Amino acid sequence: MPPLPREFALIGRHFRPLAGEGALGLGDDAAVLAPPAGEHMVFSTDMMSAGVHFLPDDPPDLVARKLLRVNLSDLAAMRAEPSGYLLGLALPRTTPEAWFEAFSTGLATDQALFGVSLLGGDTTAHDGPLTLSLTILGHAPPEALLHRSGAQPGDEIWVSGTLGDAALGLEARLGRISDPTGHLAARYLLPEPRLGVVPAGLAHAAIDVSDGLVQDLGHVCRQSGVGAEIEIAALPLSDAARAHGGRAVTAALSGGDDYELLLALPPGAGGALQEAGAARGVPFTRIGRFVAGAPEVRVLDPRGAPVALERQGFSHF
Amino acid sequence: MPPLPREFALIGRHFRPLAGEGALGLGDDAAVLAPPAGEHMVFSTDMMSAGVHFLPDDPPDLVARKLLRVNLSDLAAMRAEPSGYLLGLALPRTTPEAWFEAFSTGLATDQALFGVSLLGGDTTAHDGPLTLSLTILGHAPPEALLHRSGAQPGDEIWVSGTLGDAALGLEARLGRISDPTGHLAARYLLPEPRLGVVPAGLAHAAIDVSDGLVQDLGHVCRQSGVGAEIEIAALPLSDAARAHGGRAVTAALSGGDDYELLLALPPGAGGALQEAGAARGVPFTRIGRFVAGAPEVRVLDPRGAPVALERQGFSHF
Repeated sequence: MPPLPREFALIGRHFRPLAGEGALGLGDDAAVLAPPAGEHMVFSTDMMSAGVHFLPDDPPDLVARKLLRVNLSDLAAMRAEPSGYLLGLALPRTTPEAWFEAFSTGLATDQALFGVSLLGGDTTAHDGPLTLSLTILGHAPPEALLHRSGAQPGDEIWVSGTLGDAALGLEARLGRISDPTGHLAARYLLPEPRLGVVPAGLAHAAIDVSDGLVQDLGHVCRQSGVGAEIEIAALPLSDAARAHGGRAVTAALSGGDDYELLLALPPGAGGALQEAGAARGVPFTRIGRFVAGAPEVRVLDPRGAPVALERQGFSHF
Repeated sequence: MPPLPREFALIGRHFRPLAGEGALGLGDDAAVLAPPAGEHMVFSTDMMSAGVHFLPDDPPDLVARKLLRVNLSDLAAMRAEPSGYLLGLALPRTTPEAWFEAFSTGLATDQALFGVSLLGGDTTAHDGPLTLSLTILGHAPPEALLHRSGAQPGDEIWVSGTLGDAALGLEARLGRISDPTGHLAARYLLPEPRLGVVPAGLAHAAIDVSDGLVQDLGHVCRQSGVGAEIEIAALPLSDAARAHGGRAVTAALSGGDDYELLLALPPGAGGALQEAGAARGVPFTRIGRFVAGAPEVRVLDPRGAPVALERQGFSHF
């Protein structure tokens, strides 16, 4: 019998050590998992392609962690807890073993940080850029889940962390702007999923800001049937972003890759949110309000006048 | 507020109509699903890339159906029932709307045939070949699941359908061999997942033959700690394959894309399997046996002498 092809050796060396309960050692056609009693399972999938979602020379361990984290961010937006993930890799045929080594090391680091494990996957080679797919599996009691559709007129709009850093970080990685501390590039390379930060029963709606604040807030508006107003002066900007002036505001409004949470909170709930966030080192900032009317986002300058936007956020087409 | 980018219009027009319960209208960050009471959920993911798993000029509706079916075949091998799926698309930027139209029409056809619906997904554009990812979600009582690890010495090896057609069909699609009836190409383009065919409690182990009989049978041998012998004379070949003589045998032993089931059955159970298969129009054939010893596959010629193989099956690296 001829030896097993290289594909299986690579999987055995680099991915089998990541396999968790339910993965059946990656030795079956499928993985098996049940949610805890009384809970439902929560699923999301994201793809990342070299040259689009990351730069071809981004370190493979950070690419792996970003792939996992952008999916964890989707669970955070629903208030679900992560269980595990399935991984799909379409790789250039020339991918060296060192890439697998670094990529799987990154996954191992974040598996330990976030308490998840590899449940299954598929590895293939193709004549194209490195293309990655990850499906995250989580769980939650159905009544504890947050949706995009629950925002009500009068709700306040709150966001976690700071906005625009990652979009500026990409510019910095491309050598177009300065980034003396490396803070912006770091925010581009390694987003921070805001898992377990939002207390139960506090928010009416949530989304993770991944494709630009205005565009993603627009999704909440359409799903909830409400309008929204955000105040430019209230946008949380990091010091590193603020150094870039107006470019930082544009990045905060329409740049991608923030992976911060946006929440609809009833008036008066902000204090409890900030307290819960502070306990986890995550600041929360009120940036505007939901209003009755057409499902549109209005951006207001410091005098309360609407600002015209060239684009809402990131699009692939 | 600027109009929504084309990405959302395409999703709304072509994918939202495919969304099922649990998908939350594709309007949330994640999908939510619970298995039926007492059952577990079963997950598998497969990637397909143009030029590797399908030809760039294969009809998009058949590419969509193949993508869904290769994943359904993984559930069939575990004896799980399908619930739904998440879809990841990395597309050339120039992908025309007609492609989305045809692709989603193919999905709709198979959603109706197999009782599944779209639960979520991610669409992105990149500078590379069409790269598709699908994660299938199914469910089953855990005690009803089949694994690769249960084969015992003395078990018979049974396979569904015929082997080697799809590998020959690819050759035919490439103009390298004749295919007067189109049977071989059809088998390459549209596999038939063998869902719901294997009665409960009958088989000791199962796998779907996707990367070549010898290679996939080898996985069962390693997982079960047994050896296997298969008889060339017993391999089920279609008339269209048989017309290609020795090439058909090679395709049946090591060609990819069969998506037939391979089962380990205790002696005497074959009749019940054939009866259940006949009721669904699926023939089953005994092709060999599991034996005590090293986890290797021996291929025997009509005189019982071992045959040397150049390769076990399909590999991507």
